[in-house]
Amino acid sequence: MLNFEYCSPTQFVFGRDVETQAGRRAKALGAGKVLLHYGSGSAVRSGLIARVRESLEGAGLQVVELGGVRPNPRSGLVYQGIELCRAQGVDFILAVGGGSAIDSAKAIALGVPYEGDFWDFYCKKAVPQSALPLGVVLTMAAAGSEGSDSAVITHEPENLKRGLHCELNRPRFSLMNPLLTATLPAYQTASGATDMMAHVLERYFTLEKGVDLTDRLCEAVLMAIIKAAPVAVKNPEDYDARAQLMWASTVAHNDSVGLGRTGDWASHQLEHELSAKYDVAHGAGLAVIFPAWMRYQMRNDTRLLCQLAVRVWGCELDFEHPERTALQGIERFEAFLKSIGMPLTFEELGAKEEDIPELAKKVKYADNGLVGNFYPLDRAAVEEVYRIACQSRDN
Amino acid sequence: MLNFEYCSPTQFVFGRDVETQAGRRAKALGAGKVLLHYGSGSAVRSGLIARVRESLEGAGLQVVELGGVRPNPRSGLVYQGIELCRAQGVDFILAVGGGSAIDSAKAIALGVPYEGDFWDFYCKKAVPQSALPLGVVLTMAAAGSEGSDSAVITHEPENLKRGLHCELNRPRFSLMNPLLTATLPAYQTASGATDMMAHVLERYFTLEKGVDLTDRLCEAVLMAIIKAAPVAVKNPEDYDARAQLMWASTVAHNDSVGLGRTGDWASHQLEHELSAKYDVAHGAGLAVIFPAWMRYQMRNDTRLLCQLAVRVWGCELDFEHPERTALQGIERFEAFLKSIGMPLTFEELGAKEEDIPELAKKVKYADNGLVGNFYPLDRAAVEEVYRIACQSRDN
Repeated sequence: MLNFEYCSPTQFVFGRDVETQAGRRAKALGAGKVLLHYGSGSAVRSGLIARVRESLEGAGLQVVELGGVRPNPRSGLVYQGIELCRAQGVDFILAVGGGSAIDSAKAIALGVPYEGDFWDFYCKKAVPQSALPLGVVLTMAAAGSEGSDSAVITHEPENLKRGLHCELNRPRFSLMNPLLTATLPAYQTASGATDMMAHVLERYFTLEKGVDLTDRLCEAVLMAIIKAAPVAVKNPEDYDARAQLMWASTVAHNDSVGLGRTGDWASHQLEHELSAKYDVAHGAGLAVIFPAWMRYQMRNDTRLLCQLAVRVWGCELDFEHPERTALQGIERFEAFLKSIGMPLTFEELGAKEEDIPELAKKVKYADNGLVGNFYPLDRAAVEEVYRIACQSRDN
Repeated sequence: MLNFEYCSPTQFVFGRDVETQAGRRAKALGAGKVLLHYGSGSAVRSGLIARVRESLEGAGLQVVELGGVRPNPRSGLVYQGIELCRAQGVDFILAVGGGSAIDSAKAIALGVPYEGDFWDFYCKKAVPQSALPLGVVLTMAAAGSEGSDSAVITHEPENLKRGLHCELNRPRFSLMNPLLTATLPAYQTASGATDMMAHVLERYFTLEKGVDLTDRLCEAVLMAIIKAAPVAVKNPEDYDARAQLMWASTVAHNDSVGLGRTGDWASHQLEHELSAKYDVAHGAGLAVIFPAWMRYQMRNDTRLLCQLAVRVWGCELDFEHPERTALQGIERFEAFLKSIGMPLTFEELGAKEEDIPELAKKVKYADNGLVGNFYPLDRAAVEEVYRIACQSRDN
């Protein structure tokens, strides 16, 4: 088990109607003028933005609005948000939405007090020293950005998708009402659940030994998602299923299940290129990549794949042929993803096999030319994972 | 699932040698003069206190020492600590030890800025408004006080043991080196593990529905403790086992496994009276009370007992007679506790059956005369649990 340092200072407020506390909570943190930052029109049409605005104004706060965040949020809107905040003297940012709105807000929050280009932080040219305080009203259970120290932005015009981890990225509060996710289409619900599972699995696959507690915590979160996701997909208004998924999204990515171990994260890097090129939902891309990555890793190590198969997927260990158990676990994972409506192949996702060399070239490798930490991949291995992801799965 | 609000602002620093960061960490929080508060002579004899003192002084801090905290910490030393801090102008408290030293330090931290008697907080006559900042160097994995919002103090001379939950009780940082627990006697290691299991089980037994994620998280922590505790008892210097137990102690009681559900806590109340009267180790008292409480609850509800038996203790569900599975789970729990050297009966603990009426009378009941939240106990039921705890277990 590795040494670690950990703090999760975000105030999580979870339950029905908590979004109405936005004004009071922001005010208590010293807000005077708030940037209300959000994405699609659905939050406007549902009346959520108006309700949150009312909460802010009711607390005596001034409000500046900036909507229009797209999935896989872009640098353009971030620059616009930074300028707007500076021009208007905004001192607090409230993101209303899922990972995209929150990540865009995190980038704006870091950019406002910084004299240079906020993108410096994302290409590791500079380390953030301060940020505007950030609050969240969560409307999607997926990215876990409501409790995480990370954010992912795509830089225009070169379509470069990069992530940034820093403690200043953690929101001051996150208001989490599971019912706000009840209107999500089934595909987005499933995609969000897949994203959470991937956040856990990235941490699960490690070469670190002596990490039984976090193994178990990872497995616990996975089992809860596996139980709740199909319920939420079938019965979108099931409060308890929505609540399990919403809190699982936070736990999956606030790093509480990854402490003392090095996660892999190659699948995320490989998926980033799919999202950047085809603008697919991040979770859907992960549904295509992660099982392919697991199938590739079968040649290196089956211990954790077997453990996952037995403990999470309910497989019986084949003591004579443990690799069969490992494969059975992957197949059950794929069958699960398919059952909630996720794609499993390039074709189903709308990606193209002939783009593989280009995708593999764009992946962000470490200085040693490898990506991932479990059994790292070179460019040829990345191409092979992408090719496995092209094969049809007829389990 | 219930609404909840949650924040865990403590900075956890986990790994080898982290206690040497005490000075730097305290200084960064604005400390000038530190009360170094600890318990038994073992921390002095091992050189730990000298090492921590050196770290504090090396950071330019003044140090005032107050040792002598006993298990089940007493109000007398708290009053002494408050006076000392005021007289010396102490502005930071560093607890070195386990739950007793930390709880005593928490009480001092609340008492210094309060004009009245700190005990007011513990009898709910007043609500704490401020506290001196508190840091921790942890030397025992058990109480979870290093990350929790709670503290338990025994008031002299009437021997009244009472707990207090408040956000101000959370330490600013906790330095957690698993190797500092390697010198603990086997009995204390086992007693600590039992305490952690009880913290999880108190949260596990709830009437709240739709809490699958926290059910699973509870089970994960229990399984990790069940695996690590016997290893640490047999091989005291096994780093990974000590590390699992140390982090499990935090997770078991920082409430992350209890969110959205109401825990029971009757067993803790019943144990408090044993500790207060016989001065037994808290964990050992819980080993006697918790299985007895489970046996008593068999008449009310076996669903969660079955779930625990199947998922954690590896029992196979008897679909025709689920109550047999529930009982089998309790028996495995008892066999586990016995295997790590814990007592199971009043006799083994040194408690007396004839004291039961007195113990049951002293238990802190709610205004409705009941204790616990799962299936609450009246005084007659409490006496019965104590009586079950007197019976020999020959599984």
